[in-house]
Amino acid sequence: MNPDDFRKHGYALVDWIADYLEHSDKYPVLSRVRPRDIVNALPPEAPEDPEPFEQIMRDFERVLVPGLTHWNHPGFMAYFAITGSAPGVLADFLSAALNQQAMLWRTSPAATELEEVTLGWLRKLIGLPGTFEGVVYDTASIATMHALVAAREAAVADVRAKGLAGRSDVPAVAVYCSDQTHSSIDKAVIAIGLGHQSLRKIPTDRDFRMRVDALEAQIARDRADGVLPIAVVPTVGTTSTTSIDPVPAVADVCARERLWMHVDAAYGGVAAMLPSHAHVLAGADRADSIVVNPHKWLFTPFDLSAFYCRRMAVVRAAFSLTPEYLRTPEAADVKNLMDTGVQLGRRFRSLKLWMILRSFGARALRARLAEHIRLAQELASWIDAHPDFERLAPVPFSVVCFRWKPAGMSWSDAEVDAANERLLDLVNASGDIFLSHTRLRGRLAIRVAIGHLRTTDEHVRRAWDLLLSSRELISTP
Amino acid sequence: MNPDDFRKHGYALVDWIADYLEHSDKYPVLSRVRPRDIVNALPPEAPEDPEPFEQIMRDFERVLVPGLTHWNHPGFMAYFAITGSAPGVLADFLSAALNQQAMLWRTSPAATELEEVTLGWLRKLIGLPGTFEGVVYDTASIATMHALVAAREAAVADVRAKGLAGRSDVPAVAVYCSDQTHSSIDKAVIAIGLGHQSLRKIPTDRDFRMRVDALEAQIARDRADGVLPIAVVPTVGTTSTTSIDPVPAVADVCARERLWMHVDAAYGGVAAMLPSHAHVLAGADRADSIVVNPHKWLFTPFDLSAFYCRRMAVVRAAFSLTPEYLRTPEAADVKNLMDTGVQLGRRFRSLKLWMILRSFGARALRARLAEHIRLAQELASWIDAHPDFERLAPVPFSVVCFRWKPAGMSWSDAEVDAANERLLDLVNASGDIFLSHTRLRGRLAIRVAIGHLRTTDEHVRRAWDLLLSSRELISTP
Repeated sequence: MNPDDFRKHGYALVDWIADYLEHSDKYPVLSRVRPRDIVNALPPEAPEDPEPFEQIMRDFERVLVPGLTHWNHPGFMAYFAITGSAPGVLADFLSAALNQQAMLWRTSPAATELEEVTLGWLRKLIGLPGTFEGVVYDTASIATMHALVAAREAAVADVRAKGLAGRSDVPAVAVYCSDQTHSSIDKAVIAIGLGHQSLRKIPTDRDFRMRVDALEAQIARDRADGVLPIAVVPTVGTTSTTSIDPVPAVADVCARERLWMHVDAAYGGVAAMLPSHAHVLAGADRADSIVVNPHKWLFTPFDLSAFYCRRMAVVRAAFSLTPEYLRTPEAADVKNLMDTGVQLGRRFRSLKLWMILRSFGARALRARLAEHIRLAQELASWIDAHPDFERLAPVPFSVVCFRWKPAGMSWSDAEVDAANERLLDLVNASGDIFLSHTRLRGRLAIRVAIGHLRTTDEHVRRAWDLLLSSRELISTP
Repeated sequence: MNPDDFRKHGYALVDWIADYLEHSDKYPVLSRVRPRDIVNALPPEAPEDPEPFEQIMRDFERVLVPGLTHWNHPGFMAYFAITGSAPGVLADFLSAALNQQAMLWRTSPAATELEEVTLGWLRKLIGLPGTFEGVVYDTASIATMHALVAAREAAVADVRAKGLAGRSDVPAVAVYCSDQTHSSIDKAVIAIGLGHQSLRKIPTDRDFRMRVDALEAQIARDRADGVLPIAVVPTVGTTSTTSIDPVPAVADVCARERLWMHVDAAYGGVAAMLPSHAHVLAGADRADSIVVNPHKWLFTPFDLSAFYCRRMAVVRAAFSLTPEYLRTPEAADVKNLMDTGVQLGRRFRSLKLWMILRSFGARALRARLAEHIRLAQELASWIDAHPDFERLAPVPFSVVCFRWKPAGMSWSDAEVDAANERLLDLVNASGDIFLSHTRLRGRLAIRVAIGHLRTTDEHVRRAWDLLLSSRELISTP
């Protein structure tokens, strides 16, 4: 593609994206295609000859756009709502063109050092002390895996060299989280060879927070059984209800028991920017590591997960390894980001967070988070005031869990669940709003997650109206 | 940022990038900043108030551009030369705006199914049979880690549930690669708990290829010692010399010994698109898994690593895990990409490969790869013809390893190494060309890696001229 063509197609793409960022709600938020529709619409082989970019874009619009579920849509309230904001999208465009690989300082001083600067900015905004060093990973799943590898490194002698298998000197190990913890913790313990059974899911209190008495009892039982506890993973903003584990009390346990504390604040951590929510990271200053995802609730296009660690030397002890072809004369004077992880290659991800923080400014970001929390509180108040709806969890951030339970109906629990599934399907079929679900104390719960930059009162009101009107269509469970 | 501003800044960025893609060689390819220059040039805290995008771009140009090492520069011949090509850059722009998360089919049918289509196209182009199922990971490091987790899953009973620690029924395990294998294999065995010592680095022949007799002998020794062999990782295009391990013979060993064979073809795999190089993947059809990196030598902006597996059910057995909040009614009828890995969130990466394959067409991609190989052969012929230079490895692809060794000088080996280090530094100080090094049989080798889309005869000639003229400046070792 020559420069003139690049300009022509680039301008057209800018126009398409400008329109998309403003009007993504013209599309149904949840895709309506059926399985294999897209596979069947595309040829089975790559073309031998070049195709005009206009034609590729026409196929994009014709075949792929109907197959998008629009995460960048103000009616997206499923899972955790995220945003690819305008400055972040522009930054990622630039990042793709620069194609930096920040494995070594010399292979991208800019990406290496901007990562340090930008993570420093974010660290201060959420109130973590300077004892934490930051590194960017792609996802919280990978960040947490690295945290648990570091915990293993700290707890098991010679584990880097000798591993875990065939060693009579290494007992079974245990990692502790709550029964509300994200599945990425499960995947991490499986991946790093601890085994799924090593993960102890500590029961939660009625507000879905880890019970510290149960944690202590489980650690004592494990020690009595000859099992080696290595880490506790409390969560700030669990996936189902956004509950906040009692991090200060967990930190006391970890200090006493000498366990690695990794705080999963992937969703909730950024809310600590708000004076009203600074408390959500109470105790996190005593964590060994913590993960916060700007790509969740800080308007950063996926992927950018910020990992902060007070003991990065342990992460480096686990992973640093310099083959001859990656040796550089300046190694003693600089940070080489390849030393802090599995992945050697790494995109210039900090560029988008830097541009977002500057383009919005901290004040506007706080205002947007506060507005999302206000919208969720308002929805919660409507639910609480309605005789046919039942809220199923507290709302510490911007996610509301509830169910429809018509007053006066004598439906069984299973019937209520089935009716809520149908209600969810009807709302999602609207195309205006996309909600997801979870299960709380055995009950199916509808989740409304507010987090998109352009979500306003109007969209939350529309979600509520759809819930109210759709239930009219369900007469029997 | 309102839509008008997005258009304005977007057009300006298109112009900047168009100019960059055409004229990136106006910058010194290796950054000249010193450690901390960038950190020191930026404020320690995020701004409270929004800043104009023009000002952010001015700081980008003033502070960050000097800190870039230009991977997207035709004089970049270090490590492996890569390219963020124009259609790939446009596709990544679109991908950032769409902000898809292809964890579940329903959360992005387009990204889920286009990944299948595009990996099918690439699979056919490189001649792998339809028995391979593909999945995109970010990096070959992560792909290889997943391959070894799958190998562990296949070899160790109940490893997903019970892990490796504290089990008297699980012996030490072993993984085999050559002494030329990439460091990502080392990191993978460390990460997944096998231990660094589990990795047996099999000696290579004089052309840097794994010695299959030595592999067989090591496996026999390990079995005699009660160690459990689980996997062999041959490489097609090793990092130092791009040597090709004898995959067909390794496949025979793996079949006989019932070991997982994972082929690391991250660099060399795409060359199998060429009839002249189809043989480089001979035997790979019998692999359990193979990784090929379009972001290395197929003009795809980082990151996109293609993982093909004949036993994806084993990968799924290791990793699939569906918490309630990710259950969907269509799960039985579709592929949910979260089931094949650690990472839950995943970008819409296939979009860029799809646009690149269509925009170039297969014929032009083959022609470009063939040209890179021709350029490398030509450089090798100049080196071979020159009395003061010594080639240190065969050139099966587009990387040339050699050293300067002035005829008639009685320098010691250490003196020759030191002189080559100085030569390398002088070439790199030119700003026109960036080369890296390795060590082969104890000797320091300069590496010229040709792989950028815009690298031509002129750049290779410039590299050679710089080598010739720079050595004049070195009179003593």
